[in-house]
Amino acid sequence: MDLADRVLAGERLALARLLTQVENDTPAGRQSLERLFPHAGKAHLVGITGAPGTGKSSLANQLARALRNRGGADAPRVAVLAVDPSSPFSGGALLGDRLRMKDSAGDPGVFIRSMASRGSVGGLAGTTAAMTQVLDAAGFSIILIETVGAGQSEVDIVRLAHSVIVVDAPGLGDDIQAIKAGILEIADILVVNKADLPGVENTLRGLDMMLDMAYGHAPEGSWRPPLLRATSTTGEGIDAILAALEDHRMYLRESGKWAQREEARLTAEFDSLLQRQLKAQWLQRVGEQRLSEMMHQLAQREISPAQAVERLLK
Amino acid sequence: MDLADRVLAGERLALARLLTQVENDTPAGRQSLERLFPHAGKAHLVGITGAPGTGKSSLANQLARALRNRGGADAPRVAVLAVDPSSPFSGGALLGDRLRMKDSAGDPGVFIRSMASRGSVGGLAGTTAAMTQVLDAAGFSIILIETVGAGQSEVDIVRLAHSVIVVDAPGLGDDIQAIKAGILEIADILVVNKADLPGVENTLRGLDMMLDMAYGHAPEGSWRPPLLRATSTTGEGIDAILAALEDHRMYLRESGKWAQREEARLTAEFDSLLQRQLKAQWLQRVGEQRLSEMMHQLAQREISPAQAVERLLK
Repeated sequence: MDLADRVLAGERLALARLLTQVENDTPAGRQSLERLFPHAGKAHLVGITGAPGTGKSSLANQLARALRNRGGADAPRVAVLAVDPSSPFSGGALLGDRLRMKDSAGDPGVFIRSMASRGSVGGLAGTTAAMTQVLDAAGFSIILIETVGAGQSEVDIVRLAHSVIVVDAPGLGDDIQAIKAGILEIADILVVNKADLPGVENTLRGLDMMLDMAYGHAPEGSWRPPLLRATSTTGEGIDAILAALEDHRMYLRESGKWAQREEARLTAEFDSLLQRQLKAQWLQRVGEQRLSEMMHQLAQREISPAQAVERLLK
Repeated sequence: MDLADRVLAGERLALARLLTQVENDTPAGRQSLERLFPHAGKAHLVGITGAPGTGKSSLANQLARALRNRGGADAPRVAVLAVDPSSPFSGGALLGDRLRMKDSAGDPGVFIRSMASRGSVGGLAGTTAAMTQVLDAAGFSIILIETVGAGQSEVDIVRLAHSVIVVDAPGLGDDIQAIKAGILEIADILVVNKADLPGVENTLRGLDMMLDMAYGHAPEGSWRPPLLRATSTTGEGIDAILAALEDHRMYLRESGKWAQREEARLTAEFDSLLQRQLKAQWLQRVGEQRLSEMMHQLAQREISPAQAVERLLK
């Protein structure tokens, strides 16, 4: 059996290995991805993003646990993909918080993975989309994708999810408040985490006003992000978030927006592959030798980047 | 006179307009960029990055002022390019801090610009590199490029500068401390800002230990990032940062690393242009009609992204 078959058969080790291949964009990884394509397209992809300090990793962990604790034997299988280099899920973190993330480690219905690389030829969003597809085909019906809510690539990634949870918290600095502006617009669900901290009412009021401004004149039947409070350390509010996620999924299905987001994701994956292939084809035509000569001239500023491109494209 | 000539003649309005054209990647913008190429390649590009809450925008502002106040008539002309969506330099910010940034607004030797878009076809790094080139050709000899220190694109951008200042501050949350790991490795100069806050000695000690670990066994003659303290509200430490920048510039020149960084930047610009052109050429060959048919099949999951690419590349 090849790796893709073993992933379809539910082997965790095979899944971990295939994810690494896909992340590194190996030929074998690409082939397995093709093999898995017909099996994907079922999972609910949920982006979780927010400024540093909002506790979004703990929240992701709580959501995964709650999803598992609910349905008994029918409980959905949950995967967590952490793209945030500062996430306690990922190896880079030095924090005690990381241990807590291991809560779900013994449960075969939960799979936690952090991106080792910080992007690749096809871009961080393309790689993430491909890895999501593997988890989807492997039968995880809810995939939580966690990114830090700052930075273009990170925003691009969560944009590709079906539902985006933006996490805020009281008592963050002014700089961090400002970051929010860029991510609020992509929220499908807004969560004020650390609701046991002082200042939570203020934070809620501020966000409610922003929502009023943004959605006050929205046409009837459109989705207005619910504003929820949670305390991920105690589990407060987790059920309400899961209910909102379910509402949003229904809304997407009924409004036809589910299909639109699917299409956007597939198109992004297509674009990333296309770019890579076009460059590979071109490099073969041009030859390393000629490219390196041109790069030398470029380094000497004898020609401009545009001139180099023009000459090499002829 | 066309726009490029007017920029070379020192017209500010022409500069602002050309930057917009280049940011939006218009044909006229690309043409002007070509025209300006021989005039660029002189400026010292300085990246300023750090986690939210470190006060890097105020620091950039102070550096610009100090550079201008120094040399009298010979004072270097300084440009600030803010790529950070949360930066007080950029329009997105709601903060009072923004006013302070206008300090230098009356001085023709200072030009402040924030990126309106959050990236483009060529990617955020490509666009930033092109805009930097315009400012360089326009005669600004020091260009400060400010980005938030989280997110892949943002790290890619500062990597393209000659000198990178990474800003830290005492009293940031744990999540933010973790972000630092990703950006410390690109620092040429490390600044602990807000040095009037409690805990500054701890922050300095921690960074010093990290520097020891990273550079303890570095070969002789290699650059060890100096660790400086500053308080951008009072101006403390600004002169030391400028001196370190000058040291680093000399080091780069003498070690041949200046040329290496120039080359890396030109290559990045080349790559971004190449990708764009390859895609445009390909689109012309394939035709919108055929592409849209294929995208339809893709959306229905009748074919995979890789199959779509394969068929369209034939």
